[in-house]
This record gives sequence, C-alpha cells and structure tokens, in this order.
Amino acid sequence: MNASTSRAPIIAVVGGAACDRDAEAIAREVGAAIADRGWHLLCGGGGGVMEAACRGFCEARASGPQAGLVIALLPGEDPGAANRWVDVALATGIGFARNALIARSASALVAVDGCAGTLSEIAYGWQMGKPIVAMSRSGGWAAELAGKCIDPRRDEPVIAASSAEEAIERLAALLEVAG
Amino acid sequence: MNASTSRAPIIAVVGGAACDRDAEAIAREVGAAIADRGWHLLCGGGGGVMEAACRGFCEARASGPQAGLVIALLPGEDPGAANRWVDVALATGIGFARNALIARSASALVAVDGCAGTLSEIAYGWQMGKPIVAMSRSGGWAAELAGKCIDPRRDEPVIAASSAEEAIERLAALLEVAG
Amino acid sequence: MNASTSRAPIIAVVGGAACDRDAEAIAREVGAAIADRGWHLLCGGGGGVMEAACRGFCEARASGPQAGLVIALLPGEDPGAANRWVDVALATGIGFARNALIARSASALVAVDGCAGTLSEIAYGWQMGKPIVAMSRSGGWAAELAGKCIDPRRDEPVIAASSAEEAIERLAALLEVAG
Amino acid sequence: MNASTSRAPIIAVVGGAACDRDAEAIAREVGAAIADRGWHLLCGGGGGVMEAACRGFCEARASGPQAGLVIALLPGEDPGAANRWVDVALATGIGFARNALIARSASALVAVDGCAGTLSEIAYGWQMGKPIVAMSRSGGWAAELAGKCIDPRRDEPVIAASSAEEAIERLAALLEVAG
Repeated sequence: MNASTSRAPIIAVVGGAACDRDAEAIAREVGAAIADRGWHLLCGGGGGVMEAACRGFCEARASGPQAGLVIALLPGEDPGAANRWVDVALATGIGFARNALIARSASALVAVDGCAGTLSEIAYGWQMGKPIVAMSRSGGWAAELAGKCIDPRRDEPVIAASSAEEAIERLAALLEVAG
Repeated sequence: MNASTSRAPIIAVVGGAACDRDAEAIAREVGAAIADRGWHLLCGGGGGVMEAACRGFCEARASGPQAGLVIALLPGEDPGAANRWVDVALATGIGFARNALIARSASALVAVDGCAGTLSEIAYGWQMGKPIVAMSRSGGWAAELAGKCIDPRRDEPVIAASSAEEAIERLAALLEVAG
Repeated sequence: MNASTSRAPIIAVVGGAACDRDAEAIAREVGAAIADRGWHLLCGGGGGVMEAACRGFCEARASGPQAGLVIALLPGEDPGAANRWVDVALATGIGFARNALIARSASALVAVDGCAGTLSEIAYGWQMGKPIVAMSRSGGWAAELAGKCIDPRRDEPVIAASSAEEAIERLAALLEVAG
Repeated sequence: MNASTSRAPIIAVVGGAACDRDAEAIAREVGAAIADRGWHLLCGGGGGVMEAACRGFCEARASGPQAGLVIALLPGEDPGAANRWVDVALATGIGFARNALIARSASALVAVDGCAGTLSEIAYGWQMGKPIVAMSRSGGWAAELAGKCIDPRRDEPVIAASSAEEAIERLAALLEVAG
C-alpha cells in the first residue's frame, strides 16, 4: 500500500516530435529498457521520439511483470493531444515552459536525437544537476552533446551511450548511488 | 498495451496541508471512492487533506482490482517531500504556480476543507471550466463555496456533496457526458 | 543611475477583464493614485478593470512629475494583446498560471471587483503573505472579501478601502514598515 | 499617454551569472547599445553578464534622452536578489522555468557567453521563432552557436555579431521588418 519506500525512478526521455526511422528505433528500445526496470517514463507526450519511447515502454511492459507508467507533461490544455501510449496525460497549459518541469521532475534524462526543444531540456537537466545520457547514434542534439560537458560547472560529461541497455545500466548505477 | 482508449479520468483532490479529524476522514473516503472507480488521483502531494486522500486511495486500491494512480505535483524541487502514499511524485520547482497546473491537468476537482491555496485551486478550476465538487461538511473553503456560483460566467454552481459516494457519482455522470 | 536604492513598489491591480461603469471608475482612480506615488502598476494586461487601472495610471502620470510604469504579465504569447496603456507587455505564454506570478511579483495587491481569475489572485496574494486591499464598493470578489480573513493563517483581514486614496494610504503605511 | 503605439522592443540579454572581464565588457556595450535605441532590456536579474548588461544600459541611459527600462524576471521569491541596476524586479518564484518566460516575453535575444542556463534560453528563443544574436567573441554558448543553425526548422542561423553596434543594427533591421 505504501508507495514511497519503493517509489520508482522517473526517467525523462527527451527528443524531437518528428524523427527518422533510426532515432525512432533507438527511442523504442530506450522505452523498453526503462519499462524492464520497472521505472516510470516521463515525456512531453508528443510524436516522434516521444511516441516511440512510450510505445516501446508499453510493449515491453505488456510482456513482463513490471508496472511502471508513462506520464506526459503536455504544453497545451488538451490531454487528448497526448500520443496513444501515454498512461497519464497532464495537460499543463504552460507551453514550452513545461520543458523545465520535465527536466526538474525527472530522476534522470535520456536524450534521443532532438531539435531546439530537446536542447532546452538537456540544458535544463545539466543546470539542475540531473544525470543525463545521450544516445550517441541517434543524431540531433543527443549525438552532438554525447560525451561532452555543457559547461564547466559539472565535472562529468553527458554520458554517451550507444545502446539502450548501456544507457539504462549507466543510469541504474548512478541512481543507485544517488538513491 | 494501448492506454489512450481507456485513459482514466484524473481527479484533483484539493484541500489544506493541515486539517482536523473530520476533514481527514472525509478526504480519506473521497480518495477511496476515486480508487474504486479506477480513476487517478492528482494532488499537491502534501499533508493534511492531500495525505488523507492519498491514503484512502491506496488502501482501497489494495483491496480491489482497480489500478489507478496517485500523482503529485509538488511545489518544490524534492520529490522526497511527497507524502508516503504518492505513486508518482513530480517535483515541479515552480512554487504555488503549480496550483494552476493541478486545476488545469485535472478532469475534475473535489475540494475538501481548505485555506487560501485551496481557494486558488477552486477558483482556477472554475475559470478553466472544470467540474468541481465541494464536500459541504468538510469546513473551510469547500464548505463555503459548496452550492454556490463563483462568478456569473458558469450557470451551474459548485456541486455540493455530503458524502464521498455522492461526490463521485456526480462526477461520474458529468465525466461520462463530457467523455 | 542606480535603480535599486530607489526601487519603487510594484502594485498589482487585480480585477475582471469585463466590468461595469462603477468598477471601471474605481479602477481608474486606483491606477491614478498608484501613479501619483511614483509606484509601478502590475496587471494581467487585459480589458475591464485592468485597462481602466492602466488608463488612470497613464493619465495621472502625464500630468505629474512621477515616472512609474505599467507592466503587464499576459497569459498568451502575443504582446499585442495588451491594452493600449501598458508600457511593458510581457507575454508569458503560460496561460492562467501567470496569475501566480502577478501575486508573487507584486509588493502588494489592490482588488477591484473580479470573477474567478481575480479570486485566484487574491487567494495567492494571501497565501504568499502580500498586503491586500479590496475596494469594498467595487462589487465582485473584492467587495465580498473586503475586511475578511481568507483563512486563519494571517491575523489581519483583507484591508477594506472605500476610496482609492484610502487604499493607497493604507498600502503606503504597510510598505513603509516592510520596506 | 498612450504607450502602445510607441511600445518599445524588449531585448533579452542572456548570459552567465559569472563571467570573465572580456564577456563583461561586451555585455556592458550591448546594454548601452540597447539603451541608446530607447529599447527595454530584459534579463534574469543576476550577476555576471546580466549585471554588466544592466549597468551598461543604465550608464548609457543616464547620458542620453532615451527612457527604456531594465526589467528582470528572477527565479526566486525575493526581488532584493536583483542586481542594483534593475528598474523593475519581478520575482517569479518559478525557478529556472523563468528562462522560458525570458525567451517568450522578449522581442529578440542577445546572447553573451553563457553556461547551461543561457543555452536553455537560446534554445527556447530558437524554438519560439525569436531573432537571436550571439556575440561571437564572448565565449561560452554564445560563441559556440554564433552563425549556426540550432536545428533545421529555421533557415537563418543564429546571427553572429562581433560588436554591440553590429548586434543592435542587425536586430533593428529585423524588428523593423517584423514590427
């Protein structure tokens, strides 16, 4: 009954609302790997990388014992705008300012591909001291920033991962220490 | 696998972070009634009415087949500040501005007792056109506004309910129509 | 050159986007009285009470030596939506969540008439510990709450004022003490 | 009396809360050039680049006929945290989510140096379609992104400027067209 002692990490998957097949496949694997851990997936609720991650999550969850959730923080006022794989669609109505809330509310971030909106989320994640993994083969800002420091205020760079398993294993190690 | 066709309503329970025994008992029943429907409970994640509703929800969920969730939008940056019954603690870091997001993200609101913060949420719920039920025997702003119109822009008053069952039945009827 | 030592108080005027002639006249006098002090006026930038207060402010400023400003925090993304008397139109893009920012950013609030949105701002002002004056003859939530405590957490009620001069004199005394 | 027909552009100067002498000098010149046009300067209200820009603005304003303003959107709840050159300090209380509001409320952005917070603001400015000038000799993310496209959704890159005059002339041309 008591959720808090076992409260699962919340992993934000950030990436573009439109993406190519390769980024989509990577996002789907990332979503699945999050589900396999029993963690929650947080995203902006849109298409592209977001939808692929949510889908991968739901498909993996369906075939396993785990029970994490897909939560979306939408920019608009209509929860119906969330992609179909979202369990809980929170329509914030605050526009792109919701990017700040995605980074703030997450235990850690995984970046897949991504345009300017994704960049704002990665930048926020860094500023807020969150662990960030970037999928180095996914293109966009994730690939650009994988393995790099965004500024000198943190010692360790954005973690570069070349597979979803690697991404989630790295996060698991970090979250265990932090937890 | 596909969540959207069966996406459950999100009911915000708004009320004070401190409350007396009577309001606490009412909040607990409201939480339980939300869980019995399989709906989600959204709140500010704090103590008092919020904690009692979350607790009632989790206790009812434990004894039934339903699988709704307790989601909290916290004002601060620490998810650990959420009460122990919260499943998903989103630490927004935007202070009381999160009151707006609670009202905006909810399918409907149930008010129990409550001080100024609760009043801001009821006012927002009204302004945003959300169904609002106020527990008329719970004291505070919920009792004060039960059965009243907050301004002339909506025809129907805040719904007054004297029991949790009544509250949830009224909401069920409204959400079915809106659904 | 150095603004900070003489930084003027910021008075939020909160009230409905539509109002009758009486509330409009009161709002205009309130705006003028704020300008006469050399203070800044903060509002939501819309019509009704907001526009009348901004107009009164600008008209009084034009005939005096004072140089306060009219600043608007708009809900939408278009600064052009501000009424014509606004000096600095900040289009926040966060919808009604901007109500929280109006209360938070203000040194004090003056409420004139008002519907649910105004009520959320008064409630926020109270929750945030800001001095609040309500124009007791202006109708709406301002008249309703003038002279009343919103909850037991503060000792002094919302200050009831029957004229703009009285409102501003009361605020001046309070801000001097706080300042 | 009527502000709107002559409402001045609002230029956000984004840059780090700490910076070296060179970036400070550039920021000061940028602030001065904004003041010389009679435009408003918007910033986060902190130290480093922000303070230098505000100072340059106030010094230039003191020696000229122009009357723009320095407006700060602070992350915290205390307006007293603003640097001493700020005319109007709006303490939003929403943390780094205020970065989104700086970009959204601005007519255009000028980036000087900058760490992750600045990067989030540049990314937002791009996502929101705002004109962005980056000071190419100032270091940090401004220098990194000067002359580059942040993503393929906009055709023209972030404008690289090597002097404050150049920056403001480029913005003046763009804002005139947009205006």
